Formats: sequence, C-alpha cells, structure tokens
Amino acid sequence: MSDRKAITPPHLYRNNDKAVGVGNAFWDMSERNGLAGIVAELQDGVLRTGVGHEFVNFTCCSYLDLDSHPKVIDGAIAALRRFGVLDHCIPRSRVQIPALLELEASLGELFGATVVSAISAGVASAGLLPLIASGHLGNGIRPLMVFDKNCHVSLAGAKPTCADETEVVTCGHHDLGFLEDMCKQYQRVCYVVDGSDSLGGYAPVQELGALQEKYGMLVYYDDSHSISAYGERGIGYVRSHGPVLDERTITVATLNKAFGTSGAAILLDGYQKTTLRVIERFAGALCYSQPMNTAAVGASLASAEIHRTEELPALQQRMRDNIELFDTHIKTEQTGTTYPIRVVPMTDETVIESGRRVYEAGFYVSPVFFPIVARGTAGLRVMLRAGHTDEQIRRLCAVLIEVGAQQAAPLPEEAPLLEETAMPEEAAR
Amino acid sequence: MSDRKAITPPHLYRNNDKAVGVGNAFWDMSERNGLAGIVAELQDGVLRTGVGHEFVNFTCCSYLDLDSHPKVIDGAIAALRRFGVLDHCIPRSRVQIPALLELEASLGELFGATVVSAISAGVASAGLLPLIASGHLGNGIRPLMVFDKNCHVSLAGAKPTCADETEVVTCGHHDLGFLEDMCKQYQRVCYVVDGSDSLGGYAPVQELGALQEKYGMLVYYDDSHSISAYGERGIGYVRSHGPVLDERTITVATLNKAFGTSGAAILLDGYQKTTLRVIERFAGALCYSQPMNTAAVGASLASAEIHRTEELPALQQRMRDNIELFDTHIKTEQTGTTYPIRVVPMTDETVIESGRRVYEAGFYVSPVFFPIVARGTAGLRVMLRAGHTDEQIRRLCAVLIEVGAQQAAPLPEEAPLLEETAMPEEAAR
Repeated sequence: MSDRKAITPPHLYRNNDKAVGVGNAFWDMSERNGLAGIVAELQDGVLRTGVGHEFVNFTCCSYLDLDSHPKVIDGAIAALRRFGVLDHCIPRSRVQIPALLELEASLGELFGATVVSAISAGVASAGLLPLIASGHLGNGIRPLMVFDKNCHVSLAGAKPTCADETEVVTCGHHDLGFLEDMCKQYQRVCYVVDGSDSLGGYAPVQELGALQEKYGMLVYYDDSHSISAYGERGIGYVRSHGPVLDERTITVATLNKAFGTSGAAILLDGYQKTTLRVIERFAGALCYSQPMNTAAVGASLASAEIHRTEELPALQQRMRDNIELFDTHIKTEQTGTTYPIRVVPMTDETVIESGRRVYEAGFYVSPVFFPIVARGTAGLRVMLRAGHTDEQIRRLCAVLIEVGAQQAAPLPEEAPLLEETAMPEEAAR
Repeated sequence: MSDRKAITPPHLYRNNDKAVGVGNAFWDMSERNGLAGIVAELQDGVLRTGVGHEFVNFTCCSYLDLDSHPKVIDGAIAALRRFGVLDHCIPRSRVQIPALLELEASLGELFGATVVSAISAGVASAGLLPLIASGHLGNGIRPLMVFDKNCHVSLAGAKPTCADETEVVTCGHHDLGFLEDMCKQYQRVCYVVDGSDSLGGYAPVQELGALQEKYGMLVYYDDSHSISAYGERGIGYVRSHGPVLDERTITVATLNKAFGTSGAAILLDGYQKTTLRVIERFAGALCYSQPMNTAAVGASLASAEIHRTEELPALQQRMRDNIELFDTHIKTEQTGTTYPIRVVPMTDETVIESGRRVYEAGFYVSPVFFPIVARGTAGLRVMLRAGHTDEQIRRLCAVLIEVGAQQAAPLPEEAPLLEETAMPEEAAR
C-alpha cells in the first residue's frame, strides 16, 4: 500500500475536507442538543414527535402556508387521477404528456415570463450555469462567470463545471465595483447571485440593471426565498424591482417554499425557440427522463390559480402583519424589512442552549453559528409565516426574550420619547 | 468590445460547443421528421396527439407498467391525504415528517440494504460522487476516480467537480485491465459505471468484485435500467450478481423507470451512522430542502408492497415473454438477452425515415444515430414492457420488417434446420 500513489487535490473551487471538517461539528452539536435530526408528524400546523413533544415550526419556508392549502392538495390528487401516472418515463424532448406544458403555460402567464420547469432550483442551476458559461444562453460569447461569495451552495456548486467551459471567479458580496471592473476587462460577464438570500437580504437589482444596460452583463438570480411571498401575484423580489427583461436576466425559483408545492421554475425573457430547445436538450438533468411529477404539477396549477385571486395578497398581508408583530417585540438587524427571515443575535456560547430552551417551550427556531456563519454573528433564525397566530408569535417572542434576545424599542403609541420627535406641521402636509 | 478579453476554455472534461454543435443537429432532424417534440395524452396505454394520431410507446422505461398501477396511484393519493402537504419545507437534517424515513425503511427491507432517498438518480450521483472523490465515503483515502467512457451523462457530468477533490480519468468500456493497472498504482481507485445501460448492456459485476476484493477498489453503479425489472423482488442486475456488499459498493437506481414512481434510491451496505449523517448533511442537493414529495413517497410505498407479492415475478415474466416474442421476429445484437432494450440496426441514411414510417403505423420507437451513437451503428431503439400485448408486438415487428429490420431465424419448432442440431441423448440428461 505504502508505495502506491496518494493524491493531492487542486481544491480550486471546493474543499470537502474543510466543509465536512468544520460543518459536521456544527451539526453534531445541534443534534446532541436535540435541535437537528428531529422527526415529527404534522397536524393542523403543529408538529408532534414520537415522544409526544409538540412544537410550532418557525424554520419552515412555506411562508404563505400554501403547502397545506386544501386546493393545492386537491390539485395534486386531481392531476394524479387525470394523468393516471406520476410520470410517463421518456425524455420530454422525445414524447411528453401535456402536464409540464400546461404548468409552464400557467406559470408563464402568471409571472409574465417564458417558464421552464425543473424538479428543483438546484437541478435547474446545475443544468443552466454550464450552458451560460459556454455562451449557449445569452449572445454566444463565453462570459467570465462571477459568483457572489455568499450565493447559495446550489449555485456555488457549479463552479468547477463552469470552470471547464470558461473562467470562474468569486467576488465579494454584492461588489458592484468589482463587477464593473470585470465588465471593462472582459467581453462578457455573468454574475451569479441570490435574489433573496436565506439569512434575510436582497440583491441590488436596479444597480445590477444599470451594469447590464451599460456592459451587456448577464445576471443569474436564485429568487427562491421571495417567489410568491413578495410582489404582485407573487412575482418575487427580483422581478418586482425592474430587472432588465431580456436574455441578459435569468431567474430561477423553487416552487417548494412560499409557492407551497414541489419543483422549480426558470423565468426567461426574450429567448428564441431555438435556445429553449437547447435548454431542453442540453441543460443537464433538465433533459433526463425525471421531470416534475404530475402530483407536483397539479398542486402547482392549483397554487397558480390561488396566486390569481385576492387570496394571495391577503396571505402576503397576513405574513407581513406577522413579521411586524415579531418586530414590535424583538430587535434584529432585519427589523423593519419585508423579508420573512429574522436572525435573533446570540453569543457563540449561548446560541445552542437558547435554541434548546425555545424548543422545549414549544417552538423550533434554527441555531446558526460558526462555521455556518462567521464567529460573533451567531443567532437563532426565525422564519415567519402567514399561518402563525398572534398568540404563537407573542409566546415565541416572550421565550426569546427570556433566553437573551434584545427587546424591541417600545411602539410609537406607547413611547413618551416619540412626542419629542413628532412631525412638524410643514413636513406633515 | 474588441479590446476586451475573450476566454479560451480548458475543456478537460466536457465541451458544450461540441455537445450542442453535433447533438442539436440530431435533435433537429428528429423533430423535423416528427420523431421528437411529440405531445400526447395517455389513456389505457395508448398515446393520442392533439391531431388525433394514436400510437403505442415503445420507448418508455416503465418496463413493468407499474407507473399506471391503480395501487401506485392510490398510494400517492393516500400519502397526500395523510401528510396534508407535498413537503414540509425545511432541510431534513433539522426537522422532517416521517415520510422519507418510512420509505427508506421499506425499500431497505425490500432490497436488503441501507437506503437513502433522492429526488432523482442524477441528483444522488451529483451529491455522492464528490464525497467519494474526497474520501468521505469508503475508507477515508482519496481515490483515483475512473469513469467508464460509456457511463450515463448524469455520472460523467460529475467529473469536473470530482477533479477539484481528487484525480479523474476516463477508461475504455468495462476495461478491467486498465482498472487493475490503476489499482496497482494508486492507494485507492473508484470505478464509476452503469450497472445496466440505456443501449442494452450490463456491467461485469463479478469481475469487478474480484478487483474489489484484491485491491479494495470502490465501484459506483447506476442500475436505473434494471431495478424492479430484474432479480428477486426487483433487486436489479448488480445486486443479483454477487457484488461485494460492504462500503466498497454503492448503487443508485431511479424509482422512475420499472419501479413506476418518481425519485431515486441509494443502496448502501456497511456504512456507519456517522457516514450516513455526512451524506445527509454534505452530499450536495441531498441536503437541501427539496426531497421526494409525499405523493412520490406514497406511490413508492405502494410499489414496494407490490414488489413483495407474487405480482412482481408475474410482471417480470410477462416482460420477458414480450422480449422473447420480439426476438422471435426481429434479429438484433441483443437477441436472447434478458434486457428489455433492443436496438434494431438501420443505416444512417434510412433510420429517420424508418422511424417516421413506424410512427405513422402507430408505434413510437426512438431513432438513435450519429452523434448519439457512432457512425454505422444507427438503429431504432425499442423498449419492451410487461403491458404490451402480443398483438401490439407482432404488429410492430411486421412494420419494422417492412422498413428494413432483419427477420429473426425461424423458431426451432418450425425449423427443419433444427433437426440436424437436436440434442444427443447424453447431453439431454
């Protein structure tokens, strides 16, 4: 054995030794404290473990609770009965039953885009990014692929593959100056970034639009955390903020979070049929014989219908009300924003114990700490949904304060301080 | 623009220019001749297009027709009603409803393995192969990753990612000599290969087992085309042929073909809980919050139940009878094998026109030709299923012969020739 070759890896774009080495410690500690590896049955919005512990999940991304909407479940069942199969197994480029086409037409109308479906946003990105890297989407010029350093791992995971088709670099978070420099140096640049990220931030869509207009830059957004939850008819953060609506902007979004179903949508504009065929035939797993199944299609058609009614803005409003209610109790960096995610600061030493106490009190919030986030920025991540009751939120906030969360400043109505800053008459007109 | 940098890609492991350049011509010609891009409703095993053309699909991988089994559809519906959601959106490493665990327990019992589920075999491979490359599955030593040159694109697509964690090479199809050479040179080798491939062949499982025993080689099989269709309780080709059943053998298989549902199963042996946790936490998309949905889980539980009854061997027998019936009419290189796929040889010049005539006569078979296969090896690919009727197969074969397929030698009973080769008495004992 000893005279046989050992291998030294390049580790240009990834390093499992490091990821597993540091990440596993995080997960092991979470699990030892009962905050990972939890199995529970869901009933009427409450989870119940095998030993009878009941808790409300405050780390579920179904922000509008459409996942348990009776019409969504009925839609899934209707599609199963209509098509009589979960899938007719053959690549859709050869023969397909109309399920995916009906879904794509419906979502296309809903979001005002050309829509291509995928089984997950990760599969969509793994399929599309290498085709962008090789210049087959866009104008045919191979772009420098610039990945935002904070982009989701399902995007960053495509770096080595893209690097075999073009050059790849990683830039600072939302580093517009670096992007402009690259646009000046390279014939074409593609920026890969979360439209809405899992720790509560949004991409600078309009500033990126200016670079797109000036230099022809492509932007690839993953807007999974804001689709449905944000914007008219749930169009999401990116498309609510005036992105360049032509082949230079590509947005993927999961249907598994606020949309409430399963699968993903790729939102395109200005692509010719020939390019759509290239996607269908060459975008990795988008071409294999494993598409969204008919249950997911039927559920998604039903959810799309709900998006067309007044129920959607009503659900969005309930979610926003719940976010505001939370903000009146607990101060976070996200206070006052529309994003349904809050990270309640804790110290690296207390975060696990705090999470455990909150769980014992009947609420699951997810502890995030080094190495998942930088040292000194640990916290309990809270995701607010339309379906949470006022009572649940108030009780959660009370427990969070008990375990060390910072109380929000008193409300204007209750605050004597506010009298001093009352608006002068001229400004109030 | 002209003074800005253009990029020259490395193209060490992939080349979209080449893949799209040559592949797109194949697809365009198929589509112009009406043999790709077909949309049709499925009813009682017959497909019907918008203009009323009816045809039987002979390129569907649901080899046992379990996809349309009433119990499978009912299982999907029962799970939707029971769980009340398609998915409770949160990474399963944190909190999960019991759906996936029940499925994995059932499939584990069925196949006699530790089973981890995934939304597709492609997602499973994209997640697992980089962890194998970095030595996190197996014995911790970073292996040389040897990809079979014919392995499915969902395996080959992982080469650039694996190459950032270790060394990667491509070997000739089933080149055991090369593999042994590499085993002598490197501390550890992992061979990546289809257990059963989409043009009708099987991996040399026993010969590979000998190398595994001698050198500790890992083998990563994709056995998607034979799971359910082959072996006791549908265990598939690989596990029917005595592979090494410990951490050195990893098999993935889709649940979307003969199994009849949606999703995929990873079959493992001898892995400790700590390693299973590493898979759950770090194997790419296996860790994201998009698992098999509850409809797919319920359908798969129902299909697993069918696998435990006498119905499974009966369906396998019907499929084999259909394969034999086909073989009595048409001669192919696959004649006499158990594999449900046949490639009926045609010339590069006639294959498309032949496929079109077969389609017009009411049968879809898929033309394969350069660049999908080598020049001079074009043909019409036929997939036989348990649900095809004798009448459908006989009619298909008659049309295939009309368009130039080679007729099989007459059957023994009908063949005067055979009298001369009748078995001598001693051999017949």
